[in-house]
Amino acid sequence: MLLALSTWCEVEAYLERSRAIIVPIGSMEQHGPTGLIGTDSICPEVIAKAAAEDNPDLLVGPTFNVGCAQHHLGFPGSMTLRPSTMIAAIGDWCASLRRHGFERIYWLNGHGGNIATIAAAFVEVYAERSLSGPDSATPPLTLRQRNWWDLPSVMSVCKRLHPQNEGSHATPSEVAITYAAYPDQVRNVPLQPKVASSGGFTDAEDYRQRFPDGRIGSDPSQATVEAGIEIIDAAAKALQEDFSAFCAL
Amino acid sequence: MLLALSTWCEVEAYLERSRAIIVPIGSMEQHGPTGLIGTDSICPEVIAKAAAEDNPDLLVGPTFNVGCAQHHLGFPGSMTLRPSTMIAAIGDWCASLRRHGFERIYWLNGHGGNIATIAAAFVEVYAERSLSGPDSATPPLTLRQRNWWDLPSVMSVCKRLHPQNEGSHATPSEVAITYAAYPDQVRNVPLQPKVASSGGFTDAEDYRQRFPDGRIGSDPSQATVEAGIEIIDAAAKALQEDFSAFCAL
Amino acid sequence: MLLALSTWCEVEAYLERSRAIIVPIGSMEQHGPTGLIGTDSICPEVIAKAAAEDNPDLLVGPTFNVGCAQHHLGFPGSMTLRPSTMIAAIGDWCASLRRHGFERIYWLNGHGGNIATIAAAFVEVYAERSLSGPDSATPPLTLRQRNWWDLPSVMSVCKRLHPQNEGSHATPSEVAITYAAYPDQVRNVPLQPKVASSGGFTDAEDYRQRFPDGRIGSDPSQATVEAGIEIIDAAAKALQEDFSAFCAL
Amino acid sequence: MLLALSTWCEVEAYLERSRAIIVPIGSMEQHGPTGLIGTDSICPEVIAKAAAEDNPDLLVGPTFNVGCAQHHLGFPGSMTLRPSTMIAAIGDWCASLRRHGFERIYWLNGHGGNIATIAAAFVEVYAERSLSGPDSATPPLTLRQRNWWDLPSVMSVCKRLHPQNEGSHATPSEVAITYAAYPDQVRNVPLQPKVASSGGFTDAEDYRQRFPDGRIGSDPSQATVEAGIEIIDAAAKALQEDFSAFCAL
Amino acid sequence: MLLALSTWCEVEAYLERSRAIIVPIGSMEQHGPTGLIGTDSICPEVIAKAAAEDNPDLLVGPTFNVGCAQHHLGFPGSMTLRPSTMIAAIGDWCASLRRHGFERIYWLNGHGGNIATIAAAFVEVYAERSLSGPDSATPPLTLRQRNWWDLPSVMSVCKRLHPQNEGSHATPSEVAITYAAYPDQVRNVPLQPKVASSGGFTDAEDYRQRFPDGRIGSDPSQATVEAGIEIIDAAAKALQEDFSAFCAL
Amino acid sequence: MLLALSTWCEVEAYLERSRAIIVPIGSMEQHGPTGLIGTDSICPEVIAKAAAEDNPDLLVGPTFNVGCAQHHLGFPGSMTLRPSTMIAAIGDWCASLRRHGFERIYWLNGHGGNIATIAAAFVEVYAERSLSGPDSATPPLTLRQRNWWDLPSVMSVCKRLHPQNEGSHATPSEVAITYAAYPDQVRNVPLQPKVASSGGFTDAEDYRQRFPDGRIGSDPSQATVEAGIEIIDAAAKALQEDFSAFCAL
Repeated sequence: MLLALSTWCEVEAYLERSRAIIVPIGSMEQHGPTGLIGTDSICPEVIAKAAAEDNPDLLVGPTFNVGCAQHHLGFPGSMTLRPSTMIAAIGDWCASLRRHGFERIYWLNGHGGNIATIAAAFVEVYAERSLSGPDSATPPLTLRQRNWWDLPSVMSVCKRLHPQNEGSHATPSEVAITYAAYPDQVRNVPLQPKVASSGGFTDAEDYRQRFPDGRIGSDPSQATVEAGIEIIDAAAKALQEDFSAFCAL
Repeated sequence: MLLALSTWCEVEAYLERSRAIIVPIGSMEQHGPTGLIGTDSICPEVIAKAAAEDNPDLLVGPTFNVGCAQHHLGFPGSMTLRPSTMIAAIGDWCASLRRHGFERIYWLNGHGGNIATIAAAFVEVYAERSLSGPDSATPPLTLRQRNWWDLPSVMSVCKRLHPQNEGSHATPSEVAITYAAYPDQVRNVPLQPKVASSGGFTDAEDYRQRFPDGRIGSDPSQATVEAGIEIIDAAAKALQEDFSAFCAL
Repeated sequence: MLLALSTWCEVEAYLERSRAIIVPIGSMEQHGPTGLIGTDSICPEVIAKAAAEDNPDLLVGPTFNVGCAQHHLGFPGSMTLRPSTMIAAIGDWCASLRRHGFERIYWLNGHGGNIATIAAAFVEVYAERSLSGPDSATPPLTLRQRNWWDLPSVMSVCKRLHPQNEGSHATPSEVAITYAAYPDQVRNVPLQPKVASSGGFTDAEDYRQRFPDGRIGSDPSQATVEAGIEIIDAAAKALQEDFSAFCAL
Repeated sequence: MLLALSTWCEVEAYLERSRAIIVPIGSMEQHGPTGLIGTDSICPEVIAKAAAEDNPDLLVGPTFNVGCAQHHLGFPGSMTLRPSTMIAAIGDWCASLRRHGFERIYWLNGHGGNIATIAAAFVEVYAERSLSGPDSATPPLTLRQRNWWDLPSVMSVCKRLHPQNEGSHATPSEVAITYAAYPDQVRNVPLQPKVASSGGFTDAEDYRQRFPDGRIGSDPSQATVEAGIEIIDAAAKALQEDFSAFCAL
Repeated sequence: MLLALSTWCEVEAYLERSRAIIVPIGSMEQHGPTGLIGTDSICPEVIAKAAAEDNPDLLVGPTFNVGCAQHHLGFPGSMTLRPSTMIAAIGDWCASLRRHGFERIYWLNGHGGNIATIAAAFVEVYAERSLSGPDSATPPLTLRQRNWWDLPSVMSVCKRLHPQNEGSHATPSEVAITYAAYPDQVRNVPLQPKVASSGGFTDAEDYRQRFPDGRIGSDPSQATVEAGIEIIDAAAKALQEDFSAFCAL
Repeated sequence: MLLALSTWCEVEAYLERSRAIIVPIGSMEQHGPTGLIGTDSICPEVIAKAAAEDNPDLLVGPTFNVGCAQHHLGFPGSMTLRPSTMIAAIGDWCASLRRHGFERIYWLNGHGGNIATIAAAFVEVYAERSLSGPDSATPPLTLRQRNWWDLPSVMSVCKRLHPQNEGSHATPSEVAITYAAYPDQVRNVPLQPKVASSGGFTDAEDYRQRFPDGRIGSDPSQATVEAGIEIIDAAAKALQEDFSAFCAL
């Protein structure tokens, strides 16, 4: 069940059954010469939609599609929020959902660069209530973030499919998911070198100098539609279970 | 051409041809018993994608999908940003795109409640440069917002299709667009009364009291997939022309 | 009745009679070679004071005298708030008045550049309550903005007095009002060209290039003290009626 | 010379003569049963206007008319900005004036409750440049605040006129200035007790409990139009000299 | 009793005895060629600790150790918060302590540059409650700041020890306190001139030009460990009394 | 070398040798019935000071002593910053140090609850430059955070000393460090149960319900002064090496 494709009456009925929702959260940033700029938003969105299909007990909210990607701004098309903006925006999304009686929000994340700021945003939300004391007029929320690749068993599927050179940015697994989602978007562009170098980085200028084509440690030429379908399938199943456990917490 | 489905190299090449981009901007809010919560984001997104198809000179960015909808929060599923948050977020989107050399950003809007805050956000962006003086290190931007229903000739199509009871919220035209985009999402729910009442409002509680099922002045039971296709078609053509004119400003 | 010229005891007594207040809101910005920098604040202030004279049921607050005028900063003496600052300030003014039991605040606006940000500020105020839910501890407010030239019948007076070349900035009507308010401030400076050109603009540098003497589309040499008196008189009457209707909402 | 009653061309010419400006800054708050709510804004405005009269080398900006008065909110009609809002607003006023080449801004203050926040706002402005280092693109500003009662010799006039029970809020001297400015606004309301009690305070509730009619330590029944004229006269002269010295710093 | 060296159970027991706490607040900034960068934090911390020793009714919180010192940034090692940041941080400290039932917070200040911003921060805290009205859910707080040199009788000790050239920055008294606290940190560096010049300043560049070695009006070569011990002793006694009076308010 | 105990001239000389600095960052929060509230600030401070002793190439800044501890607010004495405040404060600290020519800032962290917000603060700092583009006037910074327990080999020492029931909050290792730093602060209070339960948490109320005495998974009764000395010694050595490597990056 998708929030964007529901009526308010249907959400009202859902709230009778469940007080939890999944929100995909990603980024808009370069993924090397063969990966799509939307990769990190597409992945959690596609996985969540697969899990939600024909599932009246799993509601998926809109995708938070631009995240923290300042380090990618050396590559055309990358977009970022400042962490302070992202904290405010996540806070407003949480407050809106809490207003309706949602008590648990599960953020399915697709971008490593978001992890810290999402966690900080949760603390900002919790702090409001913690500072008010136990008589706070604000109802409690339970917030969780989960990277799709950290869903139980997903990484083992990825490793089986790409035993080598998965790397950490523009990985064959994430690229495969986007190819599965948009089979007409497969790019066949030569990668030079085949496997990108690895390492750390600070700001956009530094990142671009270290990783000239945008990839880190990966060989995304391994990505196929078929692999993507397999990963999505495994992740969607794992998400259903993980979300059920979260609901039952 | 869609930013999310492009690589950074393709955006780099686009920037050789054009310095302008379209960003759909909408909302996540109730649209009565038959309209989808995502209506106001779906409409500009669908129109922009139709205009972008096979068009290498029209780049469409990600959809800014949660806007200013505080007045809808009395209905489950509606979500809002505070205007101060939205101004910060639009500012970050603009700054990201400016970083890459974009000089013109055309925001295709699908939600009346966004209009004021988008305009205020533009002023916030312009003010940075205006306060620095003519030697500002920040390059200039030209920002425009256009509601899809204000695109030349679109409203006349809507009026021809729905000569009566278009209303102002959960209109048959916007609902029709979403039905055309998602034909499996057509809702057949009796509306009571057939035509909703009209009027103004302040906050969420006030809105809900005045408009119990969420509609304002409309009879969205007129919405059909066919009408939606026709409106999308007219709007996409108008957008192509309006954007070309904007690029040539 | 003017808040600034009342004692707190008199305001306390007023609140027994009425829960509504008018706040003039304007700007400090160039108005061409013959218009005063304070024009947009003077106009609503003068009209509101005329309406308030000998009227114990119409309370006028202090004038919010610097608004959003980033686009005028290319001309010496213009001043601006950033929209984010203005939203915070309007919020504090509203919260202060709400604290005393005011339930309705009518902002009489004198500056086109303020319209969007005032509307966004209202949404920010409403959102606080909307996000808290119906049990919010914050009492509701009803906020309205009205441009003085949009008061019923005022524009027809302006058009009768200046059937041509009213334009949209440094108009003969607004200049006339300031001349009527300060008859010793009439400027007789040759305008070149007599009628300024029209068009849009973005930031301060862009505005100055397009409109070298600051006017847009107007010939303010038509402005006279007599015309100003007539407009103020019409606007003050219209304001009294419009405010009464607002109070009775 | 008043900014609000000048054209931009006149301000441009002024900037050839001087790079300094006076900005009156006050408050909107109760001043006991006989004092006007606008007292703290009226006083610096009236003094500055008296000093500016026929003086082409002394430019007076708009009055910053709502300041920090949270402690007065227990009395109807009082209004406040939060300090964080006031710091942002003063920052925008400074940035606007700096944009035009103003190098010195002299804030003539009429409200004790503003002193700390004005000083903090100055530090916020200075910090921007201090953190950027000596190569900062932002030109330097010199900011000063002066309470009108601290202008040389003014307090001695006040003490001569009201040797007893000047007090610290709703003082006979400030009330006298407003009576001189608005002779039709003299209030003859019995004060009980004649001299208000003195002491400190925290928030609005605390203030109202300690000072039931709003005055602190004063007997404003001494205030007369004549005394007000004398104080304004002394203060205006002192301001002219103090401002000249500030310009020559 | 020191908060940092207490367990939560001990603080819980303290709250049965007292609802007040002392928070030392200082700065990290140059103090001339012989003074330590931490001087303004060390002084209130050392005095508060001396007062707290073996005193179960005087609780000392952590030291707020970086304050408003933008004007010192021309000297390596100086650090500053912007006033807006400092107001937010003081607000969070106050809210945290209020959460536990603290009703009185006594800020013992060691830096002149902090005074205005601390006062503004208090107003920000009070304003939250004042704007909510008497039914506010937020419990009241009583906040006070006291400069250690303004504690009763302390300045007379300082003047007796250093009858001349105490000056206003890098004073022999404050340097003496730090030497007493850290006897191995006494610096014997020739000062040129022996007594620094006096005057005002704006931003960091301006300060450095006027006061090339960082001192203002002082001759800190007078500072000795013995003098420091004497001042600390006097100040600690005065603090105990002043805090007791504050608790009994 | 400690910044707080240096003069500006000494820091100036240090900057000739090195452009890097260590900043200890911790928290003020309950650590169970036997742990000190200052534990998480004391640990990194003590380790950094041990590493800095007699080391002219390792400069230690002031301790950022109140961090993100909203979840501990159910226990008296705990204090927190909101993440948004902490991001602003870390930003100001970084900007101050960058002003002097520091290019690398190494944050030695003592509190798990800080990790996300520190990382988000780094992104906020980097984003300023990344959004400005490669011609940014702001010099680059390299920021790193390291938890003291993640310093090479430290955890193996901790595990050797406390092979069981280290837990994750109020651990015997961190408590031991504080006992070593303040041997007169050893608490002998019976713990019930001996080993605290483990698990996750959301806000303060939730935390307190799950962990009634504040500990998570630990048995801090194992903590001894001797163990603390050993850990400090190992950590100080590791820090010297890790910082040298950071400087040489």
